[in-house]
Amino acid sequence: MAPASAYQKLKNRFQELYHLSGALSVLQWDRDVMMPSGAADQRAGQVATLATLSHSRLTAPEVADWLDEAQRETLSDWDAENLALMRHRHAHASALPAKLVYAFSEASNQCEHAWQHARKANDFALYLPKQQRVLQLVREVAQAKASALKKESLYDALLDEYDRGRTRAEIADVFAVLKRELPPMIQQAVATQPKKIPLPFDSGEVTKQRALCSRMMYALGLTDEHARLDTSAHPFSSGTREDVRITTRYGKDAWEGLMGVLHETGHALYEHQLPAAWAGQPVGEALGMSMHESQSLMMEMQMGRSREFFRYAFPIVCEVFGAVVPGEAMQQQLYRNYVRVEPGLIRVNADEMTYPLHVVLRFELEQELITGALDFADVPERWNAAMKEYLGLDVPNFAQGCMQDTHWAGGAFGYFPTYTLGAMHAAQFMVKAQQDVPTLLQHVEKGDFSPLVAWLRAHIHAQGSRYDAKGLLRHVTGAPLNVDTFLAHLRGRYQN
Amino acid sequence: MAPASAYQKLKNRFQELYHLSGALSVLQWDRDVMMPSGAADQRAGQVATLATLSHSRLTAPEVADWLDEAQRETLSDWDAENLALMRHRHAHASALPAKLVYAFSEASNQCEHAWQHARKANDFALYLPKQQRVLQLVREVAQAKASALKKESLYDALLDEYDRGRTRAEIADVFAVLKRELPPMIQQAVATQPKKIPLPFDSGEVTKQRALCSRMMYALGLTDEHARLDTSAHPFSSGTREDVRITTRYGKDAWEGLMGVLHETGHALYEHQLPAAWAGQPVGEALGMSMHESQSLMMEMQMGRSREFFRYAFPIVCEVFGAVVPGEAMQQQLYRNYVRVEPGLIRVNADEMTYPLHVVLRFELEQELITGALDFADVPERWNAAMKEYLGLDVPNFAQGCMQDTHWAGGAFGYFPTYTLGAMHAAQFMVKAQQDVPTLLQHVEKGDFSPLVAWLRAHIHAQGSRYDAKGLLRHVTGAPLNVDTFLAHLRGRYQN
Repeated sequence: MAPASAYQKLKNRFQELYHLSGALSVLQWDRDVMMPSGAADQRAGQVATLATLSHSRLTAPEVADWLDEAQRETLSDWDAENLALMRHRHAHASALPAKLVYAFSEASNQCEHAWQHARKANDFALYLPKQQRVLQLVREVAQAKASALKKESLYDALLDEYDRGRTRAEIADVFAVLKRELPPMIQQAVATQPKKIPLPFDSGEVTKQRALCSRMMYALGLTDEHARLDTSAHPFSSGTREDVRITTRYGKDAWEGLMGVLHETGHALYEHQLPAAWAGQPVGEALGMSMHESQSLMMEMQMGRSREFFRYAFPIVCEVFGAVVPGEAMQQQLYRNYVRVEPGLIRVNADEMTYPLHVVLRFELEQELITGALDFADVPERWNAAMKEYLGLDVPNFAQGCMQDTHWAGGAFGYFPTYTLGAMHAAQFMVKAQQDVPTLLQHVEKGDFSPLVAWLRAHIHAQGSRYDAKGLLRHVTGAPLNVDTFLAHLRGRYQN
Repeated sequence: MAPASAYQKLKNRFQELYHLSGALSVLQWDRDVMMPSGAADQRAGQVATLATLSHSRLTAPEVADWLDEAQRETLSDWDAENLALMRHRHAHASALPAKLVYAFSEASNQCEHAWQHARKANDFALYLPKQQRVLQLVREVAQAKASALKKESLYDALLDEYDRGRTRAEIADVFAVLKRELPPMIQQAVATQPKKIPLPFDSGEVTKQRALCSRMMYALGLTDEHARLDTSAHPFSSGTREDVRITTRYGKDAWEGLMGVLHETGHALYEHQLPAAWAGQPVGEALGMSMHESQSLMMEMQMGRSREFFRYAFPIVCEVFGAVVPGEAMQQQLYRNYVRVEPGLIRVNADEMTYPLHVVLRFELEQELITGALDFADVPERWNAAMKEYLGLDVPNFAQGCMQDTHWAGGAFGYFPTYTLGAMHAAQFMVKAQQDVPTLLQHVEKGDFSPLVAWLRAHIHAQGSRYDAKGLLRHVTGAPLNVDTFLAHLRGRYQN
C-alpha cells in the first residue's frame, strides 16, 4: 500500500473533526430537548471540552505541514475546493489560542443559561455581567481573526465564519435600501389589508397539531429512518445527513407550529440532501448561514405562504381538527389573514415584511458593540428608540425587547444579518425555480413537493460547498444578490 | 499564582476525560433511545472517534511524567487513592495502541447493530463473522493488557477493567458452590411452591404503567431536575451525578416494567449520590460493575421482592389500574406468585435463584472463548447442552439461546460474572443494613425509602472509589465475599 498523501491525511483528520462536530450537535440538541435542567453546568463543560479538543486537532502542527504539502498535489475540482476550505477553517482556528476557545465556549454556555432565567424574570441586570463577559471574549476573537485573516473590520472577521467572504459593507448597502423602502410599504400594507379574522374552528389541541406537523414533514420528504420531530422552547434544526432533527412548539393556533415545521424541514432537507460522496469533508457540508436560511425560507415563506400551499394545506388542517372545510369565499379571506403584515415586538413572530427591520436594528447595534463604541448596558435604550423609529412600537419590558433572542447570550455576533440575506436569496431562487419548472406551485397545490425538493437538491443541496454563497447564487440564478427581487416578491404578495 | 503541581495537572486532565466519558454516555443513550436508525454507522464513527481521543489524551507522554512526579507529592488519603486510580487507568490504556482502540470500538458498534437484526431473524450465520472479528480484537486487548499489567490470565486482564483486582480464580471458587447448591434448591422450590395465579386485573395499559413507574422513581428519591425515565428495547441506566437516565419497557404485566425501574433506579441512585467534592475525578466515580449491580439488586431484589415492599406497592398498583384492593388472603397468594422460581431460557427474565446458573454458563464459555480453546461457531452446541444440564431446558432457537444478550456482540467479555457477584454483595449489604437499622423494611412498608437510601449513600455511594470492591465490602460488612449469605437469603425467601 502506498503511503497516504498529505491530502489524504487531511481528509482523515477532517473526517475526525466531522465526527466531533456531529457529537457536539447531539450534545446541544440533547441540552435543549432532553436534558434534566440540573445538568446545565456539566453539559457546558462537556461542550467546551469537545470544542477545545476539536480546535486542537485542527490546529495541530502536522495539519499546517499537510496543508503546505497538499498544495503541490494534483487534485480534482471538488478536491481542490475541499483543500481551500480546509485552509479557510485552519486559518480561522489557528487565529485563536486554545484558552480563548475554552473560555468562549464555557462563558457563552453559562450566559445562555443565565439568559433563560433572566428573561423569564425580566431581569436585565441579572444577566448583564455574563453578557459583558461574552462580548469581551467575542471582541478578543474578532481581533485575533481580523489580524490573522487580514479582514477590513472586526465585524467582517466574525461574519466570515457564518458566511464565508461576506462583508459588512455589502450588507450595509442592501440593508440601507430595506431601511428606506420597507417602512412606507409596511404602512401601506397595514392600511389596506382586510381586518383580521380568526380560524373558524379551534386548532389548539397539541396531539392533533403534532400529527399535522409529522404529516407535513413526511410530505416534504423526511422519513423516520433519518429524521426526528420534537418539541422545544424555540424551534430549531440540527444534525447531519443521516440524522436530521427538527423541533417546533405548539401554541393556540395550528399554523404557528406548522410554519415552524416547514421552516425547520427546509433546513433539514438541505443537510439530508448534501452530496453523499463528500460526507465528512468540508466541501460536502452546507454553505454558510445565509444559504441555510434561504432553504428554510423557501419552504416557510416562498412556498409555505403561497396561495397554492394554502389551498393544499387548509383542507388538511380542517380534516385534522375535525372541522368542515369552509366555502371558497371564506378560504380567500382566511388566506389574506394568513399573509398579514403586523408590526410586532418579537422577531421570531414577525411577518416577512417587518422581519428585516428587526434584523437591521440588531445589525446596527452589533457593529457598535463589537468595536466597543457601545456598552451593553446601554443596549436597552438604543433598542427601544430603534423599535419606535422603525416599527412605531413602544417596548414594555426587557423580555420583549433586547432580551428576546438567545444569539448574543450565546456569543453569536454577526449572525443576525444571515436571516435577511437568506430571505433575499430565497426570493431569487424561487423566481429561478419557477422559470425552470413553471408548474412548480401547481404541484404544491396538489400536495406534490417533489419537483421543488428535486430542484433544490440539484441546484443547491448537492453542490455542498463547491462555491461560496455568492458564487452559488450567481451559478444558480446568473445574478448577484439583488434586493429588488425580494422587494418585488413582497409587493406582489402583500400589495395585491 | 504558584505553578500547578503535577497532581493538579493530572486532576485537570482527568476532569477532561470525565467530560469526554460523559459525552460518550450521551451519544450511547441517544443511540438506544432517540436516534433514527439510519444513523447507526455514523454514530459508530462518532463514538469510536471520542473513544480514541479519550485514549490518546490519557496516554499522552506528559501524563506518564506527571504520574511519576506526583508520586513524590504529599497527598491526603482521598488524593492518594485518586492518584492510584489514575495510575490504574493509565496502565490499562497504555497497554493498547490507539489503532486497536478505534478498531475495537468500531467493530463492536457494528457487531451490536448486526446482532440486533440477526437476533430478530434468528440468523446466527449472519452475525457470526462480525462476532468473530470482535472476539479476535478482544483477545488482542486481553493479551496486551495481561502482558502490561502482569495478570495471571487473559480473563483476569479483562475482569480488571470491570472490577478492579477481581480474579478468575476467586469467581470460579464461588461459582462452583452455586453450581452445586442451586440445582437441588431450584428443584425443591419448583416442586413446593403454590400454583401460578394471574393478577386479578389487567395491568397492561402503557400510559398507566408509565405513571406507576415515574411515581416509584420519585418515591425512591430521583427528581426531574437530575433524572429522566424513557423507554428502550432493553432497560438500562446511564449518565452522571447531575444527569442520571434510566429506561424500562412496558409489557403485559405492570410488575415487569416496575421491577426494571427499581433495578435501574438502584444504579441511578448510586451515580447520583457519589461524593460531590470528587466529581470528575476517578476516586469520585462509582466502583466497578459488581458493586454497581449490588446497588440495583438491593432495590430490585433485596428490597423490591420483600413482603414489605409488596404490601406497600400492591395497593398502589391496584389504584393506578382502577382495581379494588383484594383481601389479605388473596394478597398473600399474589405475593407467593411474585417471588416464584421458574427455570427459563432468558437471563433477563430469570428469577433470583435460577439467574446465577445463566451466569455460570456464560462464565464457563467466555473463559474458553478468550483463550481461543472454543471457536464462536461452536457456541450454540455448547450453550444448548449447558442449558439442558443446568436448568433442564431445550433451546428452540438462537434468539432464545446464545444470541439473547448484547454483551458479547458489544465486546464485553468478563462482564457477566459481575451480575452474580452483585447479587452476593447485595445479600451481604442487606443483612448489615438491617442490623444497623432494624426498622428498615417497616419503613419500606410505609413507603418511606429514606432510611434505606441514606444507608446506601453513607456506606457505599459517598465512598466513591476510595476502596476497591473487595475493600469496600469488608469495610462495610466486616467480611469478605460470602456465598453462604446469598444462599441463606434464597432459602429464606423461596423455601418458606
